[in-house]
Amino acid sequence: MIVVMKVGTPTPEIDRLTGEFKDWGLEPEKIVGSYKVVIGLVGDTASLNPERIEELSPWVESVLRVEAPFKRASREYRQNESTVIAVPTPNGEVRFGETEAIVTIAGPCSVENEASIVEVAHRVKAAGAQFLRGGAYKPRTSPYAFQGHGESGLDLLEAAREATGLGIITEVMDSEDIPKIAEVADILQVGARNMQNFSLLKKIGAQPKPVFLKRGMAATIEDWLMAAEYILAAGNPNVILCERGIRTFDRRYTRNTLDLSAIPVLRSLTHLPIAIDPSHGCGWSSLVPPMAKAAIAAGADSLMIEVHPNPAKALSDGPQSLTPDAFDTLMAELAPFAELCGRSAKATQPV
Amino acid sequence: MIVVMKVGTPTPEIDRLTGEFKDWGLEPEKIVGSYKVVIGLVGDTASLNPERIEELSPWVESVLRVEAPFKRASREYRQNESTVIAVPTPNGEVRFGETEAIVTIAGPCSVENEASIVEVAHRVKAAGAQFLRGGAYKPRTSPYAFQGHGESGLDLLEAAREATGLGIITEVMDSEDIPKIAEVADILQVGARNMQNFSLLKKIGAQPKPVFLKRGMAATIEDWLMAAEYILAAGNPNVILCERGIRTFDRRYTRNTLDLSAIPVLRSLTHLPIAIDPSHGCGWSSLVPPMAKAAIAAGADSLMIEVHPNPAKALSDGPQSLTPDAFDTLMAELAPFAELCGRSAKATQPV
Amino acid sequence: MIVVMKVGTPTPEIDRLTGEFKDWGLEPEKIVGSYKVVIGLVGDTASLNPERIEELSPWVESVLRVEAPFKRASREYRQNESTVIAVPTPNGEVRFGETEAIVTIAGPCSVENEASIVEVAHRVKAAGAQFLRGGAYKPRTSPYAFQGHGESGLDLLEAAREATGLGIITEVMDSEDIPKIAEVADILQVGARNMQNFSLLKKIGAQPKPVFLKRGMAATIEDWLMAAEYILAAGNPNVILCERGIRTFDRRYTRNTLDLSAIPVLRSLTHLPIAIDPSHGCGWSSLVPPMAKAAIAAGADSLMIEVHPNPAKALSDGPQSLTPDAFDTLMAELAPFAELCGRSAKATQPV
Amino acid sequence: MIVVMKVGTPTPEIDRLTGEFKDWGLEPEKIVGSYKVVIGLVGDTASLNPERIEELSPWVESVLRVEAPFKRASREYRQNESTVIAVPTPNGEVRFGETEAIVTIAGPCSVENEASIVEVAHRVKAAGAQFLRGGAYKPRTSPYAFQGHGESGLDLLEAAREATGLGIITEVMDSEDIPKIAEVADILQVGARNMQNFSLLKKIGAQPKPVFLKRGMAATIEDWLMAAEYILAAGNPNVILCERGIRTFDRRYTRNTLDLSAIPVLRSLTHLPIAIDPSHGCGWSSLVPPMAKAAIAAGADSLMIEVHPNPAKALSDGPQSLTPDAFDTLMAELAPFAELCGRSAKATQPV
Repeated sequence: MIVVMKVGTPTPEIDRLTGEFKDWGLEPEKIVGSYKVVIGLVGDTASLNPERIEELSPWVESVLRVEAPFKRASREYRQNESTVIAVPTPNGEVRFGETEAIVTIAGPCSVENEASIVEVAHRVKAAGAQFLRGGAYKPRTSPYAFQGHGESGLDLLEAAREATGLGIITEVMDSEDIPKIAEVADILQVGARNMQNFSLLKKIGAQPKPVFLKRGMAATIEDWLMAAEYILAAGNPNVILCERGIRTFDRRYTRNTLDLSAIPVLRSLTHLPIAIDPSHGCGWSSLVPPMAKAAIAAGADSLMIEVHPNPAKALSDGPQSLTPDAFDTLMAELAPFAELCGRSAKATQPV
Repeated sequence: MIVVMKVGTPTPEIDRLTGEFKDWGLEPEKIVGSYKVVIGLVGDTASLNPERIEELSPWVESVLRVEAPFKRASREYRQNESTVIAVPTPNGEVRFGETEAIVTIAGPCSVENEASIVEVAHRVKAAGAQFLRGGAYKPRTSPYAFQGHGESGLDLLEAAREATGLGIITEVMDSEDIPKIAEVADILQVGARNMQNFSLLKKIGAQPKPVFLKRGMAATIEDWLMAAEYILAAGNPNVILCERGIRTFDRRYTRNTLDLSAIPVLRSLTHLPIAIDPSHGCGWSSLVPPMAKAAIAAGADSLMIEVHPNPAKALSDGPQSLTPDAFDTLMAELAPFAELCGRSAKATQPV
Repeated sequence: MIVVMKVGTPTPEIDRLTGEFKDWGLEPEKIVGSYKVVIGLVGDTASLNPERIEELSPWVESVLRVEAPFKRASREYRQNESTVIAVPTPNGEVRFGETEAIVTIAGPCSVENEASIVEVAHRVKAAGAQFLRGGAYKPRTSPYAFQGHGESGLDLLEAAREATGLGIITEVMDSEDIPKIAEVADILQVGARNMQNFSLLKKIGAQPKPVFLKRGMAATIEDWLMAAEYILAAGNPNVILCERGIRTFDRRYTRNTLDLSAIPVLRSLTHLPIAIDPSHGCGWSSLVPPMAKAAIAAGADSLMIEVHPNPAKALSDGPQSLTPDAFDTLMAELAPFAELCGRSAKATQPV
Repeated sequence: MIVVMKVGTPTPEIDRLTGEFKDWGLEPEKIVGSYKVVIGLVGDTASLNPERIEELSPWVESVLRVEAPFKRASREYRQNESTVIAVPTPNGEVRFGETEAIVTIAGPCSVENEASIVEVAHRVKAAGAQFLRGGAYKPRTSPYAFQGHGESGLDLLEAAREATGLGIITEVMDSEDIPKIAEVADILQVGARNMQNFSLLKKIGAQPKPVFLKRGMAATIEDWLMAAEYILAAGNPNVILCERGIRTFDRRYTRNTLDLSAIPVLRSLTHLPIAIDPSHGCGWSSLVPPMAKAAIAAGADSLMIEVHPNPAKALSDGPQSLTPDAFDTLMAELAPFAELCGRSAKATQPV
């Protein structure tokens, strides 16, 4: 943290500030220039609020944070080694991480009925997915829209898990539901709209299942990593970050703007695995294949893709869902990209 | 809802669609042009998802919503009459609404200690505020920042209420806390980061205290009214909408961009009262006075303003807080604007 | 400018950098902390590119600009005194500035025909406007839309000027047209889409007529002041800054988001006069009156308002234009706001 | 175009409107529902302004554009066949288009001196680039920053062209410069800041050299295609669209947000070739390789990449430039992606 003082700040004021910083347990260092004085703060500044410092004295011109505000989420925290999250599923352990094969998560936006979810599960498994997604509790813009089947939706996911051995990922909208969701799900999802629901983050961080943390629609990379930091700080080290499109000025041909540059940016900042959801990110199924390929090329560790047996009849998000046939085709098209990136199952798994 | 069919759609396909719409309880009407066919849908289309219709047939070119998706929040729902929310406080009933005097809510970002909150309460009451704000539970970007005093903070708010008779407004971050917060608070706040925490909206809509609903950082006017709709649909008709700045590309000199045009836009769309929070909206105390005046001039019903006895020592949001003296000055400056707009206590209250 | 070095930077590298900065004519000062070394740069750093410094050495962690990059546009450049731009018009000198009465500019989006422009000019003059706006050259999104009457439109503006004595302001889209436009116009406008047309800025800065510089749709406050800096650096000190709405994620009920907080922000940064265009800023005539009042309350020096005798027949921007009758009403409503702010003609003019 | 009338619109008003539309040469068709009346407009509606229609009658509820406003740029205009732009260069014809090999354009942001530009040209040619980029006229945010060498910079580009046979692409900032730039350049670039400089678009559309049209920072896909439409309408059919990052709320770790979904979106809307500039799009050289791969995977036809012999000493945009060695590595890494996409020189060129 760098504190820049205004031209003409009286020396006693600088000494007063320096003393205050020492009281806070920091090590202030003063640089006296011919025009300006700057105070460098070293020590544990991650939890400091720059604005609080600005208000310490009317002579403070600005306070500049040099260090990132996240700690446990930072790449440095793990000495530049990336995290691999190993998730046990009936079909065996699935590993998410920079050094692993790409993990594919597929399934419908909402769980609708047993026949449908089991059918989709079989199809996406056959195409190569390791996880089934499906919402039992659905965040919907309108209170009049289908809100998900709730608890009975969880039973349907369990049936699909039993039928196929796929791991299950589903969204938690209310911390009260964590225990029953955690009985069925192998990974708990926090949706974009709850990315800064800090009560939920704390509680989901206090349970042991891995967390799939979607980026908020207007969340900066830093906001997002700070949300992950809430979960990590609560004791759960297994967070997968999922980019799903940000809100921009152009929403005519895509629902959101899929920010693929988040992949290399996150890679340099954090050790956590990185997933991409091109279905929500674009909002139209025709855009999913090119963006899924691009996500792999840019270095994603995992893809989440919506698949519905009959998108036209889907109770939610039909336009962005692929049919099982289209998903088969996509998986076949993605395979050589994964291989080229050294991220195919073959390329990464030990003999 | 207007369904535009592609050029060359076969008649049987149009008939099939028309039949499907009838099954849904709608009244489809077909317009046959020389190039195109359009189907108009009348009836209860507010809960229809345009995207679901688009997927009904590959021959659908586009679906255009003509009606707003919100119902109970719409101005039409109350035959164009605006809602007045009368809130009982120890000092008497305070009324929020288009036809009432401007209601001022003031106080610190966080409740810090009894002496401080009681002092601020006395000062803002003396300056003319009717409500005291103060966070017991604080949404903070960082898990390492001060998170509020929680339950004991509520006791401090109660002490301030008893000492001054001011109404209390404070934020609910977790639905579990609603009962104890509702014991102390006269109005419950939903913060910007929870605007689409639909579980919380449903539960806060199921209790009787009025709700102060802040706009999400990236929420469109429509998203925001749909969030209000969740509360209204759950049975609570008393929602006050509060604009507090949206996130844009320029964050160098303001934290957010305060969208004052939301005032006349909301006025034309909804019957609910409209508040402005220039403190969060701008992020710097020097910008609060001009924007508070502008908010009144643009037609706001209520202002929420941060006041702290010693902003430099505030545990959160110091830079945007006014001192009590600055708040005195501001209230004196605002009075003639309120009077000019016919919104001063004198001008609007009965003898 | 503050240059923060990475932990462990070798001393010779720091000395090398320090030497390089001295070669650039700067005065580098080194602060050595227990963890980090920081180099403060004093001297003329306004034209330095922080990124260029970052690339000077792999040991540079970050470069932080402390000073604003604009000079001539900064408030400090005029020792905190604001600029008053006095524009001669047939009806007498009109003065734009913080210490002056509010100047109103009104008229149609495009100049359409002589009868119409002269009629509007008479009407807006009678209502109290000092300047007539009207586009002869029109920036239109579509090449198929009406592009303005061009040179013959200038003749119509001249006719209106002669008939009413109002000053004329009109947009320059091509630097080739400057001479003929400058013959008729008292103020030359640079439109939002040309705010970073640097060739145009240089050429318009090299002629003597005052310039009305609209903010670009995605221009930060800093981009905008740097655009003004181009004009000032080319020799023309008379620039009026006009906010006309920025592009955000919500475009459903307003065309743009009018950023009124730009008024107090600019006031603290620059000495230049500040205008607001609520017509383009909102895009709908019903929003113009509340936002015009708010603009005055927030401290604007000038308002630009679209008025058309028959908005429904306007060749461009009809929906945001007021009728002359509505403009009469608005001007009557604005007068007490201007008076309250000490900005009415009475309040500010000398005896 | 669909015109939706308000509930209760009197029949004569509808007839009046219908008549007016006929006068405009359109074919209005009326649909009468039990609640609402809708008028469908068929015929040449591309040049119609929806807002103008809204103002035709107070009974119009809304006007919905069904067709895209661009014509010549639309895919339909060429019966769904994509455009191939063949550009003659000293080394032979280079072809941009969906059915062709990927074209690589590389070089420094600014042309600095002959030795440097010729060296870079040799290096990028050796690595496989077909075009040399380099700015002689530079759009810079600050008037105090290096503005490019101008005309003498063109001579340097010519020298590099002669030395290597590479095609030349360089930016036009002022229409006055078109003739002299066109003498040297094989493709003329319109920069992001001039994307809606309509005077420049018209003049550049009136000359025969192909145009490289960068997307404006806040330009929607539609704005951008309408800018292309200006050039096409002026008679020049050879426009290459280049995405170079849009402005969003997060600018901490990338300068802009590179919108790769623009590739499949444009492919469905237009027949014009699509290029991606990951250097400007991200702003940091470390992000260029992953995003360049992603661009190919998403279907780009061309890449523009900044290469500078010594980025730390670059007069502009150093941080986003690759060294020639890094560019060699990148080209080698990109080759298998191009091959996988059927876009390598081998794969696409005839025997």
